[in-house]
Amino acid sequence: MPAFTAHQLYRVGKGILMELGATEEEAEIVTRFLVKANLAGHDSHGVIRIAQYAKGIWKGEIVPGSATEVVVETPSSALLNGNWGFGQVTGFRASKIAIEKARSSTVSVICAYNCNHIDRLADYTMMIAENGMIGIAMANSVKIVSPYGGIDRMLSTGPLSYAFPTEKEVPFVLDIATSVCAEGKIRVSLHKGEKLPHKWIIDKNGQLTDNPSDLYEGGAILPFGGEVGYKGFGIGLAIDALSGILGRSGVAYHDNKRGNGVFMEAINIESFMPLDQFKREMDELIRTVKKSRPMPRFKEIMVPGEPESRSERQRIKKGVYIAEKTWEELTDVAKTLSVDIEKCLN
Amino acid sequence: MPAFTAHQLYRVGKGILMELGATEEEAEIVTRFLVKANLAGHDSHGVIRIAQYAKGIWKGEIVPGSATEVVVETPSSALLNGNWGFGQVTGFRASKIAIEKARSSTVSVICAYNCNHIDRLADYTMMIAENGMIGIAMANSVKIVSPYGGIDRMLSTGPLSYAFPTEKEVPFVLDIATSVCAEGKIRVSLHKGEKLPHKWIIDKNGQLTDNPSDLYEGGAILPFGGEVGYKGFGIGLAIDALSGILGRSGVAYHDNKRGNGVFMEAINIESFMPLDQFKREMDELIRTVKKSRPMPRFKEIMVPGEPESRSERQRIKKGVYIAEKTWEELTDVAKTLSVDIEKCLN
Repeated sequence: MPAFTAHQLYRVGKGILMELGATEEEAEIVTRFLVKANLAGHDSHGVIRIAQYAKGIWKGEIVPGSATEVVVETPSSALLNGNWGFGQVTGFRASKIAIEKARSSTVSVICAYNCNHIDRLADYTMMIAENGMIGIAMANSVKIVSPYGGIDRMLSTGPLSYAFPTEKEVPFVLDIATSVCAEGKIRVSLHKGEKLPHKWIIDKNGQLTDNPSDLYEGGAILPFGGEVGYKGFGIGLAIDALSGILGRSGVAYHDNKRGNGVFMEAINIESFMPLDQFKREMDELIRTVKKSRPMPRFKEIMVPGEPESRSERQRIKKGVYIAEKTWEELTDVAKTLSVDIEKCLN
Repeated sequence: MPAFTAHQLYRVGKGILMELGATEEEAEIVTRFLVKANLAGHDSHGVIRIAQYAKGIWKGEIVPGSATEVVVETPSSALLNGNWGFGQVTGFRASKIAIEKARSSTVSVICAYNCNHIDRLADYTMMIAENGMIGIAMANSVKIVSPYGGIDRMLSTGPLSYAFPTEKEVPFVLDIATSVCAEGKIRVSLHKGEKLPHKWIIDKNGQLTDNPSDLYEGGAILPFGGEVGYKGFGIGLAIDALSGILGRSGVAYHDNKRGNGVFMEAINIESFMPLDQFKREMDELIRTVKKSRPMPRFKEIMVPGEPESRSERQRIKKGVYIAEKTWEELTDVAKTLSVDIEKCLN
């Protein structure tokens, strides 16, 4: 597994995407977020996606150069049509609009449809938090999660993200699937030939199982919450309603569902209290919670965003290891497009 | 256990509260929400609370007649000081302001501090949903929940509620603690001398246990999510930041923390799409999800708000059974205040 610097990955990704027809702005936004995911330790959301995006462009599912259209708008809200451009570009523009509108209107809600794979929600809520606001984001996609007590796929993994600005502490950023785990984790176990760590899925007959292949033979992922899974299910349903119905992207169980429906919100802290004070109090919350004595099998308390921030520090120093198969796929795409990988790496 | 009609309970509650110094408006709001909780099947949030509120008033912790002050305000936000009036009155006024502001500004965020026990968040989000909007509410209170992987109490049970208007289906209303269960459930098990259904708490040394008394001997309730409890913990932390820091009520671990910090939000659907269409699509989402085949040990799929709605229909028909001890406490308070219970019941 070769290791690369973030800058090398960024140049490779940008080179490929521009050759695929992306504008410089698009290629920059998409690659920056993909490489950020790799740095954060979420390789499933990193440059591994480039080969998938190339296929999407060749099939006409991703349309480089698409404008993000404002369909309906008020001073504090907007409904966007992503016109099937890059998901990250739609997401980036939605966050920018959310920030601008919350700057003058305190709170803003931006929804988007016809939006391709938006990748990590944390990227957008962090953008909002970096502007002194509280960022909230949700998304839906295709059905793969069962309702609590049910067998059939009805919901998507429905991710949810909150980000809050801090002063000296690592910014608080939560980014979770509302299913017990993301589909990517199950695929990884399948490829490794391993069982899942717990019975996180059901087979096609509704029996709990830790065999990852059962998911791909008509099974479903459980909503998160275990024996109180109605809580994860309830939040998942709320996310489907906010991003699928209010956001006009369609709910998860629709047969023609693709891409992500997006719900994004910004809350301008200065309308409630001085931003400095808010940040100091966030720091204090994080520090105090981390002081809790750990349970027997834990080493320490980690707050949301902390594992990613540690990974980033380490990978900036040591480089990002890319799996052989991922690198092969990337170089194959580069060859097809006559992109000079060696040049990007130097 | 005597059974009463909702109207009887309402008259008893209102009679007692007015004798305790509540204005007619306050007594009406508080009793209406308490009786609604009984009808919904959540007796822990119902008229059982009246004796507790009486003690609160006698101790000076609840101040009947308090004005709800607007401390800071924009066209789409407000920070309220409840001045330690009845929590439900602060909550009711916050929802009204949220609705008014979202009517003209599409989205609104209202926070409140110095707020006594606000009771079920569903009451407020439902108020918002009845006005054709999406209602979101969160609250924090005193620490009783451990961080994921930690032993010490740091967070409150941090409830979270979402309500969406529907056309023909029962309104979608989620109202959950972000701990694995509410403290009230553990107290009920303790009083019945029963074990908890699962190891939902830890003892003072951080060992998982199903013995409810361990909670009251220095233990803590776990955040919800089981082996992915970092998700419930993360949402709980976000709620503490929104209601405790942005809402100025103080975070849960503060030693002098009391009452509820409140975060409330309204989103005006009409700014995104016709309300009728939204309601029809919510109906379709609910109906489709309920069509999932149930898992072996389940009879059907229930959506958020459905168990409460069924309980309400049944209890309106058959009456509300009040536990002997609760009724004794209520009649004791009534006697102390020379409230004629018999008259209220006729």
